[in-house]
Amino acid sequence: RAGGPAVTDQSARRRELDLDADDELAHWRDEFVIPDPELVYLDGNSLGRTPQRTVTALAEVVEQQWAGDLITSWWEHEWLDLPLAVGDELAPLLGAGPGEVAVHDSTTVCLFQLINVAVDLALDRRRRPADAPVVIAVPTHEFPTDRYVIDGIARLRSSDARPVVVRHGLDDLDDVDVVVRSHVDYRTALIAPLAEETARATGHGAITVWDLSHAAGVVDLDLEAAGVDLAAGCTYKFLNGGPGAPAFTYVRRSVQSDVVQPIWGWFGQRDQFAMDNPFDAREGIARLLNGTPGVLGLTAARCGIAVTAEAGIGRISRKAHALAGFAIDLADDLGLRCTTERPPASSGGTVSIVHPDATALQRRLAERK
Amino acid sequence: RAGGPAVTDQSARRRELDLDADDELAHWRDEFVIPDPELVYLDGNSLGRTPQRTVTALAEVVEQQWAGDLITSWWEHEWLDLPLAVGDELAPLLGAGPGEVAVHDSTTVCLFQLINVAVDLALDRRRRPADAPVVIAVPTHEFPTDRYVIDGIARLRSSDARPVVVRHGLDDLDDVDVVVRSHVDYRTALIAPLAEETARATGHGAITVWDLSHAAGVVDLDLEAAGVDLAAGCTYKFLNGGPGAPAFTYVRRSVQSDVVQPIWGWFGQRDQFAMDNPFDAREGIARLLNGTPGVLGLTAARCGIAVTAEAGIGRISRKAHALAGFAIDLADDLGLRCTTERPPASSGGTVSIVHPDATALQRRLAERK
Repeated sequence: RAGGPAVTDQSARRRELDLDADDELAHWRDEFVIPDPELVYLDGNSLGRTPQRTVTALAEVVEQQWAGDLITSWWEHEWLDLPLAVGDELAPLLGAGPGEVAVHDSTTVCLFQLINVAVDLALDRRRRPADAPVVIAVPTHEFPTDRYVIDGIARLRSSDARPVVVRHGLDDLDDVDVVVRSHVDYRTALIAPLAEETARATGHGAITVWDLSHAAGVVDLDLEAAGVDLAAGCTYKFLNGGPGAPAFTYVRRSVQSDVVQPIWGWFGQRDQFAMDNPFDAREGIARLLNGTPGVLGLTAARCGIAVTAEAGIGRISRKAHALAGFAIDLADDLGLRCTTERPPASSGGTVSIVHPDATALQRRLAERK
Repeated sequence: RAGGPAVTDQSARRRELDLDADDELAHWRDEFVIPDPELVYLDGNSLGRTPQRTVTALAEVVEQQWAGDLITSWWEHEWLDLPLAVGDELAPLLGAGPGEVAVHDSTTVCLFQLINVAVDLALDRRRRPADAPVVIAVPTHEFPTDRYVIDGIARLRSSDARPVVVRHGLDDLDDVDVVVRSHVDYRTALIAPLAEETARATGHGAITVWDLSHAAGVVDLDLEAAGVDLAAGCTYKFLNGGPGAPAFTYVRRSVQSDVVQPIWGWFGQRDQFAMDNPFDAREGIARLLNGTPGVLGLTAARCGIAVTAEAGIGRISRKAHALAGFAIDLADDLGLRCTTERPPASSGGTVSIVHPDATALQRRLAERK
């Protein structure tokens, strides 16, 4: 801030101290491994910090359970049920109930599953002719993986008898079967109104798959009240689940029995160890499971979710709003162009500043930690 | 062995000592975490032991890289390339070359990807009418996940214009487009001849997806010499990769550019961080990647693969043969019915004994460690 105005610096410093004094979450800093206390971690939205309890839990899982109890751990330590147990622990952070969330696979795979599910649900319900194209609508600047997954599904599921097409932009939802969209825009942190936009799609006969990757763990969500049917998201950002931690799927209880997902594996099978049976999907959210759960990744995800749940998503959301408002004011004072609106219109814990020298500035900020 | 014949016990004991004296792998025991040295781990084919180096590597990744270097680890510690780097380290164990193997996702997801790939390759090459059913053949008693994945794909990809059907049994490969089968049968450890059976399918115009889950890390494989195009398998059994460790896909170099896989994610995208581009698959095996790699699971898989590679797959395979032969002889002496044939016809490190009181006997064996 070599060139910054001194008066602003002083008032900003006062506001910092005021915010710190009011910070009901301050003591949670001690729950994390922070080797360099001088480093200000502003670019962590793709990898949350490391909870202390994650280190302890991984050591126990590796050295006691895996090395010590070997394959009996699948039952004795309930590894078989980890995706559902961790899902139930995550559910309150999403405003979901028990049995509505599973933690498993990558966000890309979870989106692939749910968008296929949405296509089938839409086909079951639609009143258009059987050869009318299936239309999947997605925001033009949606996060890349979401757009890629949709394009792949359009290719995979198109036939000469019935094409599957992609519409970019959500203004026109006429003849749309499936909407795929993020709750929090990853560039601007703008929050799409969950209930209103779900209802608008439903009004057009479309089913919405919500991507909660930039929302879960920082936005105080209520999927149940908002009438959301299908959602997926990641746990490695604001949920502190670790690098490439498993993602989650949410399916509203009332539609679960209608769900047929595309990847049939033996963890989605009703009587898993009756090896000769034909496939028969498990009841509930468990039918979204595929293969053997990754126990190490799930263990870390569980710890990150637990820290977030204990700290309280209401308090975290309030602090994200306060910090985002403060950061936007500072950016304004410095004459920087900020594409993030003030909370509550935006803020998923992200503030975007546009600058022609962004790359160089980011490098210098990193050097200064 | 309370009721066992004493003479057999003595000669068996002599053979044990002889085998131990000849064991060129004995010192590798020290590379593993073994809290209870008295326990004989005979039922470990779904979870290999814990390498010592896995404990060290996970601590470094969690406490130094994740906690310390945070998001810069994606570049500084090459997390972004882990699936390909670990794939290249696994390749020599499979008889594959660099750039032919990636480690990622679960075995179920990898099979889903490759069987879809095989369907598309078969359709590109086939000379039958466009509306002729696509036939996927699978052994009647194939491992459940393989059968389930195939049934799911048949549902997903059937259309009124062209059904996708499943044929159980491999005797008749007429009009078959895709064969899916295990190299080592999970019940009997019988080994299907890789080159001969691949060629037989090719002779019928079919492409084979090999499941190497019960082979990788114990059978001395040579996928290149055998002419295998597509294969998948797990790393948590004989490769000691940890509970639910990520799986692997192999695609022969000469067919990679023809491969279009079904799950399009941003780790399969050519210019990953040019966020606004349409999907354009990466060259080589990288086009099999989906979402953000699970770094913890990959770290453990990498350690297990390294231990196996260093010990030498030739030596491991020879020891598996010697142990299996010994176990079958002991079972014969005890009058037990063994469904595993003698090596080299069978033995993926598995010996199957059939007994009406199997459940009770297994419990008693576990109690006696």
